[in-house]
Amino acid sequence: MRDQICEVVSAAIMSGSLAHDRPLPSCRELAIQFGVSRNTVFAAYNRLVDLEFLVSHNRSGYFVNPHMADLQMLENDRNGFDRDPIPCPVSFPSNNLMPIVNPLDWSAYPYPFIYNQIDPDLFPVDSWRECTRQALGRKKMPVWTSDSVESDSSQLVQQLRQRLLNTRGIYADEDEILITLGSQNALFILGTIFARLGKPIALEDPGFFGARNAFRFVGSELIGVPIDSAGIIPSKIPEQCQLVFTTPSHQFPTMITMSLSRREELLEAAAAKDFLIIEDDYEAEMNYVAKASPSMRSMDSTGRVIYVGSLSKTVSPGIRLGFIVAHRDIIREARVARGVMMRHPPTIVQEIVALFFQLGHYDAHLRNIERRYQERWHAMDSAMTKHLGILERTQSEGGTSFWLTGPEGFDASELAVRLRSKGVLIDRGQDYYLNGDNSRSFRLGFAYVPISKLEDGIKIIAEEVRAVL
Amino acid sequence: MRDQICEVVSAAIMSGSLAHDRPLPSCRELAIQFGVSRNTVFAAYNRLVDLEFLVSHNRSGYFVNPHMADLQMLENDRNGFDRDPIPCPVSFPSNNLMPIVNPLDWSAYPYPFIYNQIDPDLFPVDSWRECTRQALGRKKMPVWTSDSVESDSSQLVQQLRQRLLNTRGIYADEDEILITLGSQNALFILGTIFARLGKPIALEDPGFFGARNAFRFVGSELIGVPIDSAGIIPSKIPEQCQLVFTTPSHQFPTMITMSLSRREELLEAAAAKDFLIIEDDYEAEMNYVAKASPSMRSMDSTGRVIYVGSLSKTVSPGIRLGFIVAHRDIIREARVARGVMMRHPPTIVQEIVALFFQLGHYDAHLRNIERRYQERWHAMDSAMTKHLGILERTQSEGGTSFWLTGPEGFDASELAVRLRSKGVLIDRGQDYYLNGDNSRSFRLGFAYVPISKLEDGIKIIAEEVRAVL
Repeated sequence: MRDQICEVVSAAIMSGSLAHDRPLPSCRELAIQFGVSRNTVFAAYNRLVDLEFLVSHNRSGYFVNPHMADLQMLENDRNGFDRDPIPCPVSFPSNNLMPIVNPLDWSAYPYPFIYNQIDPDLFPVDSWRECTRQALGRKKMPVWTSDSVESDSSQLVQQLRQRLLNTRGIYADEDEILITLGSQNALFILGTIFARLGKPIALEDPGFFGARNAFRFVGSELIGVPIDSAGIIPSKIPEQCQLVFTTPSHQFPTMITMSLSRREELLEAAAAKDFLIIEDDYEAEMNYVAKASPSMRSMDSTGRVIYVGSLSKTVSPGIRLGFIVAHRDIIREARVARGVMMRHPPTIVQEIVALFFQLGHYDAHLRNIERRYQERWHAMDSAMTKHLGILERTQSEGGTSFWLTGPEGFDASELAVRLRSKGVLIDRGQDYYLNGDNSRSFRLGFAYVPISKLEDGIKIIAEEVRAVL
Repeated sequence: MRDQICEVVSAAIMSGSLAHDRPLPSCRELAIQFGVSRNTVFAAYNRLVDLEFLVSHNRSGYFVNPHMADLQMLENDRNGFDRDPIPCPVSFPSNNLMPIVNPLDWSAYPYPFIYNQIDPDLFPVDSWRECTRQALGRKKMPVWTSDSVESDSSQLVQQLRQRLLNTRGIYADEDEILITLGSQNALFILGTIFARLGKPIALEDPGFFGARNAFRFVGSELIGVPIDSAGIIPSKIPEQCQLVFTTPSHQFPTMITMSLSRREELLEAAAAKDFLIIEDDYEAEMNYVAKASPSMRSMDSTGRVIYVGSLSKTVSPGIRLGFIVAHRDIIREARVARGVMMRHPPTIVQEIVALFFQLGHYDAHLRNIERRYQERWHAMDSAMTKHLGILERTQSEGGTSFWLTGPEGFDASELAVRLRSKGVLIDRGQDYYLNGDNSRSFRLGFAYVPISKLEDGIKIIAEEVRAVL
């Protein structure tokens, strides 16, 4: 309550609505007004004195600090401000991006089979608080309040090497790692430096729209490469490409795991056709049937694989931390690009996450979410086998979603519209295609739907599928 | 101590160096080894059981959790890994940026008159901790762990409007504000959307290299516009420019405050020549002689002024938060660009800073740093009047630096080299010029040098100036 009172009073001061020449209401008066004890108001007033909003004059009470006058709204007559919309003096050419439009209140739907948002209830708040408290120790202050373009948190880099890259079989020196603001930022940074080479970029089709948008936004020409049940097809990559974007662990959005021989083929093609590979290690941790496949970066001895990882799935999407592992020359360019773009990810977040690793919370949290996702994945698997046999399901062994395809003439967009009115949200497949030319597939993400509701959701989908067919 | 033990033991587990078939050392053994009490080791072991690193078998002691085997290093034979440097399979064309090279250990120098880093001791750690604690409340969890491209923290936007934009005379609706990862990020975002228009961008010369780099990196042609004692000279802005970058509150790096009539002239020129203005409100809060001048955004009724602000100076540079205020059509484009670039600034940081404003800490902290900087500014002023009369000093009334110019033939770069060996760091002026063609000026930032050492530093500079002349 004290803080709420502070807030109300300080806002009143800032807006200039309190007189400077008269004392504020007494603690007794305000206590009655707010329905709190006099002590609470007293504490609030004293706090505002500490914060220099108020001054206390013995006997006559609390007054607005005269210095506050300077800070108050310059223009109280803004109420009469002309709010007629001014036409924008500039108009921008189209950005060519394909936004995916979902309802803003998606999480309020009973069956939101979209996105891959982690269930916020799974987040270990107490551990996170502990790390925050430690990161905010006075001793550490200069570290996290300072600004450095050049260097990332060495604690975090160390933890990534030890606890994350190691498990993916990747050895990297410090100068082969760059911390980014999530994997989207990693892809954008790479996009900007490769755009300067002026050659096309190949992407899996269907594929990750985040990558597509990042590369397209900086002006690169995009070429879609089809996939089969073993992953991207190397022979379909055109000669002139400089870069191939792929998600070997779980192909986005189909969740296909690229086979070992296909990975070898792709590496051979990279050497033969002289292209580099961005390996986005999408949901590498989520494997429910077999062990994780080795990363392509760990198989490469030529420096052609650029590895992109994210902590959005395994820690929290609101944290926004990711990283790039690549040849040091590429990291050097990427660091310059990051500097121009934003200097660096917030130091305090880097420090907290480093502690989150260091104290073992990351590993514990990861095992916890793996277990939960595994349960959900199997629940989805049985529910779909039971109710959705009518559709073709792409075989997968992990991840937090499934990819389904209807027969000739099936329209997943129509299905999506019908389902929405039943409280079910799905991602229509065409948004994942470079040319939006496939309407038979759709994607079901199960990260956010409670396990108890999965089967009910699948049943509703099955009913509507039958209605559409 | 408990946490340190947890860390050592968990690292040992992750690296695979603990046997799985034998119990760990007893609490007693480890207590002797670490020189701590048995209770501390007991607490650490129990914590590692909670975190699922260990399992406890009654009577026989603590064992490594068998599940850990999967997570351990895949490749312990990496020690033999070939660390011969691989040549990079790609080479990038020059990025045309002009980096400013300062020693990495600059803050260890006795007189670092460079950058504008705030003194970390001024940061209100306790207030910040309080905000963090509140932001991490369980109730707020879904807010800050979730991921949203579209919306910024509405709490933060509200606080910026009420407490910051108000004091600059700016009224803005929610859809006229975009939160960015610091002002550098704001400039880069604006750079990317204006680059699509393909017209040149005009900048003050000398000027802010961060803006120069951002616009150049995305491919825009840059045109330098000279300044005089009233600020940028509107008549020198070429017709074909689409955008003019300016720092009216305190011109970077000269600290000249743009006169009111000059601001009006610039606004008229914008309408006449059809360009937009980016107003980077650099160090707007730091005024020691007169009150803050009104922002250009508050004087504009045509939608031509894009306002860029930062919390790096007034809160902390490691926080990395800034914002853009502009016509809603421009904000819409900027939001799309931000989404492709990084989705959004970390939610948790936005929430903490919102509370920092809400509970009045921002205003209190700002008054505190203003007071400290004012003292330092006046100390610099007298020391330079006393010892550095030999140089021409650009008149200013605020900010955290001074701009000095020597007579014909004076070489500030030579001065910088000489001073460095005396423990004094300065910023040579030529780095602020678009073509690096002025060697007579240099910049002295006083934010980081302790007030007690300012005069000594100035004396050393004066000695070396005499030696150079």
